[in-house]
Amino acid sequence: MSQADAAAQVDTSKLPNVTDVTAANITEYVHQVNASCPDDRTRFIFKSMVQHLHDFVRETSLTSEEWMTAVKFLTDTGKISTDLRSGGPEFLHRASTLVDILNNAKPPNATEATVLGPFFTDDAHDIESGGGIASEDKGDYMYVYGKVTDTKGNGIPGVVIETWETDGNGLYDNQDPNRDGPECRGRIHAKPDGTYSYRAVVPVGYSIPGDGPVGRMVQVLNRHTFRPAHIHMMLKAKGYETLTTALYLKTDKFLGSDVVFGVKSSLAVDLEYVKDPKAALSRGFPQARPHHALHYDFVLATPEEGANAREKLTLAGGKA
Amino acid sequence: MSQADAAAQVDTSKLPNVTDVTAANITEYVHQVNASCPDDRTRFIFKSMVQHLHDFVRETSLTSEEWMTAVKFLTDTGKISTDLRSGGPEFLHRASTLVDILNNAKPPNATEATVLGPFFTDDAHDIESGGGIASEDKGDYMYVYGKVTDTKGNGIPGVVIETWETDGNGLYDNQDPNRDGPECRGRIHAKPDGTYSYRAVVPVGYSIPGDGPVGRMVQVLNRHTFRPAHIHMMLKAKGYETLTTALYLKTDKFLGSDVVFGVKSSLAVDLEYVKDPKAALSRGFPQARPHHALHYDFVLATPEEGANAREKLTLAGGKA
Repeated sequence: MSQADAAAQVDTSKLPNVTDVTAANITEYVHQVNASCPDDRTRFIFKSMVQHLHDFVRETSLTSEEWMTAVKFLTDTGKISTDLRSGGPEFLHRASTLVDILNNAKPPNATEATVLGPFFTDDAHDIESGGGIASEDKGDYMYVYGKVTDTKGNGIPGVVIETWETDGNGLYDNQDPNRDGPECRGRIHAKPDGTYSYRAVVPVGYSIPGDGPVGRMVQVLNRHTFRPAHIHMMLKAKGYETLTTALYLKTDKFLGSDVVFGVKSSLAVDLEYVKDPKAALSRGFPQARPHHALHYDFVLATPEEGANAREKLTLAGGKA
Repeated sequence: MSQADAAAQVDTSKLPNVTDVTAANITEYVHQVNASCPDDRTRFIFKSMVQHLHDFVRETSLTSEEWMTAVKFLTDTGKISTDLRSGGPEFLHRASTLVDILNNAKPPNATEATVLGPFFTDDAHDIESGGGIASEDKGDYMYVYGKVTDTKGNGIPGVVIETWETDGNGLYDNQDPNRDGPECRGRIHAKPDGTYSYRAVVPVGYSIPGDGPVGRMVQVLNRHTFRPAHIHMMLKAKGYETLTTALYLKTDKFLGSDVVFGVKSSLAVDLEYVKDPKAALSRGFPQARPHHALHYDFVLATPEEGANAREKLTLAGGKA
């Protein structure tokens, strides 16, 4: 369709008049123009977004140069964005962490959720409880074990634990352009009583990409870009809400200042240093070197319990 | 520097603790982390931005899917962004128009400013007042003339008017990938008494790009993408503030619903239809066809007058 034909099709007779825009009326103008959006939820979201965006510009009397800096930042992050590197919008001041909190709230007696991060893949191998997720020489031995229960303490049957972590160099397998399969990740099938165990390596902390537009922003703000060492787990079981979480090593110097604000005290763990070669062999480590043991019991919420927790948060204006 | 070395250099002893983040404390956490930003203005801007971004997420209880839609939108607009097509961030609900208003406010007795848009180029030819900016057959003849004065009505000497417009097809020259020089644009040098005139073509309204992520957003919001016909002018003179403005044709059906909210009543003009072939010839049109005449007198503010106007607006919290 030509522009002229498209223009001819627009009925302007009922559109709100938006001439003579001022800093005082522009927000209402945008609300009026968006009022014809047929979807209630979309209209609601845009109204809140526009109001806050405009209030921000007014409160700061943002200069044209500052605005162009912001636009260039968003454009640049868009351009370099990949699946593994989502760039600025998500990093932008933990709004994504806040979204996670609101969408993954759990009842107080269930295990807390935390950020998924960009390194999950869905191609992990199925591994029976007791198996291993890391190849030899990928890092220091770590044995992970515990039990998965409901909020009443009953073991849950049929739990599947997707787990992924860095190797001893602080790298995920999918950061390797020559990756030819899962490494330091696995889909663990827990036992019918809810207990689980697997061999892994001690994860190592790392910096999120410090170059590019986000890196420049971090420098301007005088912040660091490190995450403390952690191992990701996503627990699934029929009749329960999926729990996306991670366990953090208490000994990491960045435990208290995680760049993505993912750490929760209840998810911070100590490793037990196990020297006994018999224990190593019985846990399936091919060499009888010392290993570290991570013990953690998880509590899953039902969909109803989770929905109640989130409803409370919503009723509290997201501030509970 | 290796990650381990970089990590070792970070002194975490004085960093704020950001563990156990909740929807209630996350905003304060981010403020605390950004408090080490050494630049006052940057810190102020980030604090306001973070507060509004988080309040938006909380107010809407934004879902993860909605958040991902927003992130994808910003990423996509970044990816397709070019100089001529700045994509989403600027279009996003006229925040850029608000920035323009705050930064280009003029005193009440001066000509109003309006949005620059993406089609300005700095390579227009210098043209003496009375010359032409459009090649033959680029559109219907239009003659533009008037006077440029100060706020007291005195003609200003040495005024240069950068002017650019679409051709009769609604296209700017720099939308043509085969552009080999300026067309329908020029740098007019007004006469010493402030009067100016030039030959142009009647501009034609157009749609901003309706495909891509912005196009999808426009569809969701049930809005149109048209701008009414207009001719851009940027007036410069020593001792006066540069005025970036445009004149809009009152007859355009989209005058009241300009997609970028650029129209001001004081900038909307009627064209005079001039049939007299002698007038056409005397104004330099090569053929004695009828032409349209656009008469407009501009009033420029001094830097001091402009600064006063903007200070008033800032003192009013950007709401004057």
